[in-house]
Amino acid sequence: MATTAGDEHTVQLMLKRWQDPDSGLDQAWREEYMVYLSFPDPNKPNKVSVVNPSGSVLHTAREKEKPYTSDQEDPEVVQPYAAYSPAGEPKGKLVYANQGKPSDYHHLNQTMDLRGTIAITRYGGAGRGAKAINAAPYGIIGVLVYTDPLDINDGLMSDVNETYPHSWYLPPSGVERGSFGSQFGDKLTPYLAAKGDTYRIPEESIPGLPPIPIQPIGFKDAYTLICELGGDAAPQDWQGGFNCTYNFGAPGFKPTSVFNDSDVKLDIFNHGKIVNSSNVMGVIRGSVEPDRYVIYGNHRDSWVHGAIDPSSGTSVMLEITRVLGGMVKRGKWRPRRSIIFGSWGAEEFGLIGSTEYAEEYLTKLSERTAAYINVDIAVFANATLRASGMPSVQNVIFKASKQVSAPGLDSTSVYENWIRYFNRTSPTHGLIPSVGYLTGAGSDYAAFVHYLGIASMDISYTYDRSKTNARIYPAYHTAYDTFHYASKFIDPGFVGHQAVARTAGNVLIRLADSLVLPLNCSDYAESLEEYLNTAVSLYQEQLQAKNISMEPLKRAVSSFGKAAEHLDQVIHSSDLANETPLKVRKINDQLMLVDRAFLNPLAFPDKYGYRHVIWAASSAGKPTFPGLADAFAKAESSGLSGDWDKVHYHLSVLSQAIDAAASILADVI
Amino acid sequence: MATTAGDEHTVQLMLKRWQDPDSGLDQAWREEYMVYLSFPDPNKPNKVSVVNPSGSVLHTAREKEKPYTSDQEDPEVVQPYAAYSPAGEPKGKLVYANQGKPSDYHHLNQTMDLRGTIAITRYGGAGRGAKAINAAPYGIIGVLVYTDPLDINDGLMSDVNETYPHSWYLPPSGVERGSFGSQFGDKLTPYLAAKGDTYRIPEESIPGLPPIPIQPIGFKDAYTLICELGGDAAPQDWQGGFNCTYNFGAPGFKPTSVFNDSDVKLDIFNHGKIVNSSNVMGVIRGSVEPDRYVIYGNHRDSWVHGAIDPSSGTSVMLEITRVLGGMVKRGKWRPRRSIIFGSWGAEEFGLIGSTEYAEEYLTKLSERTAAYINVDIAVFANATLRASGMPSVQNVIFKASKQVSAPGLDSTSVYENWIRYFNRTSPTHGLIPSVGYLTGAGSDYAAFVHYLGIASMDISYTYDRSKTNARIYPAYHTAYDTFHYASKFIDPGFVGHQAVARTAGNVLIRLADSLVLPLNCSDYAESLEEYLNTAVSLYQEQLQAKNISMEPLKRAVSSFGKAAEHLDQVIHSSDLANETPLKVRKINDQLMLVDRAFLNPLAFPDKYGYRHVIWAASSAGKPTFPGLADAFAKAESSGLSGDWDKVHYHLSVLSQAIDAAASILADVI
Repeated sequence: MATTAGDEHTVQLMLKRWQDPDSGLDQAWREEYMVYLSFPDPNKPNKVSVVNPSGSVLHTAREKEKPYTSDQEDPEVVQPYAAYSPAGEPKGKLVYANQGKPSDYHHLNQTMDLRGTIAITRYGGAGRGAKAINAAPYGIIGVLVYTDPLDINDGLMSDVNETYPHSWYLPPSGVERGSFGSQFGDKLTPYLAAKGDTYRIPEESIPGLPPIPIQPIGFKDAYTLICELGGDAAPQDWQGGFNCTYNFGAPGFKPTSVFNDSDVKLDIFNHGKIVNSSNVMGVIRGSVEPDRYVIYGNHRDSWVHGAIDPSSGTSVMLEITRVLGGMVKRGKWRPRRSIIFGSWGAEEFGLIGSTEYAEEYLTKLSERTAAYINVDIAVFANATLRASGMPSVQNVIFKASKQVSAPGLDSTSVYENWIRYFNRTSPTHGLIPSVGYLTGAGSDYAAFVHYLGIASMDISYTYDRSKTNARIYPAYHTAYDTFHYASKFIDPGFVGHQAVARTAGNVLIRLADSLVLPLNCSDYAESLEEYLNTAVSLYQEQLQAKNISMEPLKRAVSSFGKAAEHLDQVIHSSDLANETPLKVRKINDQLMLVDRAFLNPLAFPDKYGYRHVIWAASSAGKPTFPGLADAFAKAESSGLSGDWDKVHYHLSVLSQAIDAAASILADVI
Repeated sequence: MATTAGDEHTVQLMLKRWQDPDSGLDQAWREEYMVYLSFPDPNKPNKVSVVNPSGSVLHTAREKEKPYTSDQEDPEVVQPYAAYSPAGEPKGKLVYANQGKPSDYHHLNQTMDLRGTIAITRYGGAGRGAKAINAAPYGIIGVLVYTDPLDINDGLMSDVNETYPHSWYLPPSGVERGSFGSQFGDKLTPYLAAKGDTYRIPEESIPGLPPIPIQPIGFKDAYTLICELGGDAAPQDWQGGFNCTYNFGAPGFKPTSVFNDSDVKLDIFNHGKIVNSSNVMGVIRGSVEPDRYVIYGNHRDSWVHGAIDPSSGTSVMLEITRVLGGMVKRGKWRPRRSIIFGSWGAEEFGLIGSTEYAEEYLTKLSERTAAYINVDIAVFANATLRASGMPSVQNVIFKASKQVSAPGLDSTSVYENWIRYFNRTSPTHGLIPSVGYLTGAGSDYAAFVHYLGIASMDISYTYDRSKTNARIYPAYHTAYDTFHYASKFIDPGFVGHQAVARTAGNVLIRLADSLVLPLNCSDYAESLEEYLNTAVSLYQEQLQAKNISMEPLKRAVSSFGKAAEHLDQVIHSSDLANETPLKVRKINDQLMLVDRAFLNPLAFPDKYGYRHVIWAASSAGKPTFPGLADAFAKAESSGLSGDWDKVHYHLSVLSQAIDAAASILADVI
């Protein structure tokens, strides 16, 4: 866990590996930041209890997860808690608020006065902290959150024969920990590296934190509470996996319950703390273009043992550095470009280590970095590859995955296996694996994509979705994410780990060592055209009625497409291996730097850290330009002319960014 | 004048020259923007009059300047006006408000009620529009501004034998026109290129415009008004060159005056208009590094004939393009890097053409531009060179100026002459010419310095300050800035023009054609160290008392110095001509891109367009880091802890920017 003795142990491990004289890197070092984290009080554990009117405690939720192996009995296992939840001791009648979305609380509030209540919610549908942020305006004073067996266990609940250690499913006392802050990076030093003397905003000014106490519990305790709730039955889509009806709460428990008239009380003793967190950095110096970087990273911290999250990714990274480092040390190989490896600290608290690194070296990284590869949870399950990234990296992942055998399928490549699970029909390429987009901030790619505008990707092995509906592997962020669990249930024989190491390593070598950067701008153009088509069909009619033209956006996307096609032709029709180094560099710089034109620090005034106008998070849920979709949704709902002005403004921002990107791909003069 | 038929005529002239088959450039074209300008109404001229209580007009200010040559009788001469002054017809008692600084109005307000008055102010001390912005909070309803003979004419006033056409001095009816807006770039499209469909803010939301009508007049009319003012005598430093005592005004005129009891009335009919303004762009393609740009520019528009402002600069630019273009066309020469020439439109209305260009091509220019050279008014007078710029360009200007003969001084170089007029003792170099800093937004370098962070310089020939105290050449922005005036009084024989063309052309060739970019990072370090020393002596004690450490800033400046010294050593100890092209490129990129690390869009939340933390405009008037100086001054004056927090915040921004710049100069990996 970030900044603990265990964390320091992993720092030393990484340094030792990367400084190994036979298989290490050219250089490895640590970079330290003073970051604001949130911890429970080991001497005063958080409590969730049912208290009757006379003050008697009728039920207390488990403080720690039930042990099935010695791993859960390790004294270093942190009590489940909601990092960045405020301390507090709210007590009130319980209500069931489904997933804690704004619409959920709105629905509840139609029929009851929520002031002074405690809401119990299930994971999913809304961000962790959002469940509390959405609740507070209704006067709700505390929130519980749990993982419903329907959402994680395909409905299974019993630890007698169904859940871990009998399967990969979450035991009844398992609790998903997590950061409940909504912005990435250190919370006290927005847009600045969190050095010792850096100016820090007051804790009370941190935006995006839960305003009221919130605490996660296991589904066994949730069962005890929810099945006793009074009031009307909640709608069908609010019902979960328990063998009882999920009622709204009256508020409070049903009259026939032993909990009748009782309150639920939260005793939360979390506290914030500024602590020293380290990134471990390692480098293989490029032979020809040392000032061009390919960055490969993963976080090092976990919530508990973190065998899968993050150590599946870290083991993949260590295997890649061992192999590449060994070749470098033996003098067999050195990449054309420099490779930087980052073992990020404090990711679990909001992608802090990678974000501080990006903030500290913003300009240098922006000027020199060709691509960022993120492999965090390397193996969710061992069925198929999954990849997300800028469209320009799709092709290099395809090429790499064609050269690696799929685990357990000797004559099938990772690519051939992948296309069976995720595929789409591209206008240019026909049937190909479907590569997702990095629109959110789910792992350490966030600062690279959104803040730096660097071509990035996230790679893992994952589920066969026909076999499970689990929203994530069930032991995620619990005390059951252990070596035993990983080796027995997630990836026996670690064949998935190997496939990811070979695929991501192949991608890395291609990016670091190819004469021409394997970034494909025509694939970028194809995605922009799809976004445009969606935007036109969704918005054009209404925009025309408001006298807002989509023509500049159409012209910009068309310019980008033409410039990309032309640059592709130049690349394919030239004998670049026999060209002067500066001619090749010119093309590589066009490919590398085109994404920077999509950055605009004013594009998303309300979204911290988001500057990339094409890939930002969006609440509108439309497969098109995120800022346009959100601005349109807001204007359509409010009808205010000021909101339509913002749509027009964002359209100008977007069109000009795409025009600017096109001018980078076009002939340089 | 921008966007008139005359402007179009100059567009065609530039295109013709730059497209000339024998002496033109590789390519030339126009780029158009739809920009918001402000004009008087030719059918309803602005009026300034003295009106007595019965409504009789006792005096009317001249509407146009007095003709001495046919130039002033040209019907295209625009009536003197304050661009971006609102229309309005305020009438009130007159007061004299010195230079219209906040302290001037504050002083006046001590002894009288300013509500409903008209203030007359002289140019200087405060920005044009600021004179109205500062006035409005006191209830003043209109402002006049004139050029006092003491400030421009070394006290001379008579057109019988003293002023133009007898000398370079301003005739009594001469009026300085100008833009009275305070931000640069098109006013309706902040941070966006002003294309046809671009979102525009409402006119009433434009920040930084005069809130009350303001109008410039000649000093003959100002004399008539000021010498009749009643009330107490203004302080000594408010007195100007007129042979009367400058009184405050009672408000209003003295009882013994024919104007007793009369009001001053302004009838202002200015109106805003969105019009098409063009930049003319020309290019010489680089032979080896076409994707590295050196940009050379000047505006094309003037207020009236503009022989000096801007045509002295434009003639220099045309001479340079004629010579270089000729060599290119004859196949004799082609620069290593690409040269882009910009003939900017609508500079006089707030540096609009160059700023829109920077906004449109922000990312591309930032990625590829090695330097920007601005030669606007090439010759203020023909005594000595004057140069301002980033410290990194000092050395290349020195080298160039050593190779050019000073006008009229055969065996003296421009450099040797220059050092006699402006010099300083550098810790590294000893006695050298003193190169100024580009902290403000006085010409088209503004967007390149402040918004793009490109190494920039501004070059001209200027006065012998022992011979005149004129705040600028006296015909500036008047109908007397003509070829006759320029050739007779500013630069007979155009020898100053030649010296500037040779010097700036030499600088341009060095930047475009040297193997290693002639940008000196150690000189940058020296300036940062001087700024630091000043900051420490001015602020450290008080900052320590507030528990704000200057150590991070000291460490950052020291890192920058060490990295610069190291890079200099690498350059000087390497045989770069025999190194691989990519090794040289690596060093050139370090030199070219280091300034980008100084950009922070959050550094100056209240200063539009300013992102370079080292060279911004500052109101504190201290020769040190501008944001620190301003934040400190504000905190010291308010004493608010929130303002001290802002000092701390800015110190972090500044230290981290310098650290980031140092890391760009340091070994790349």
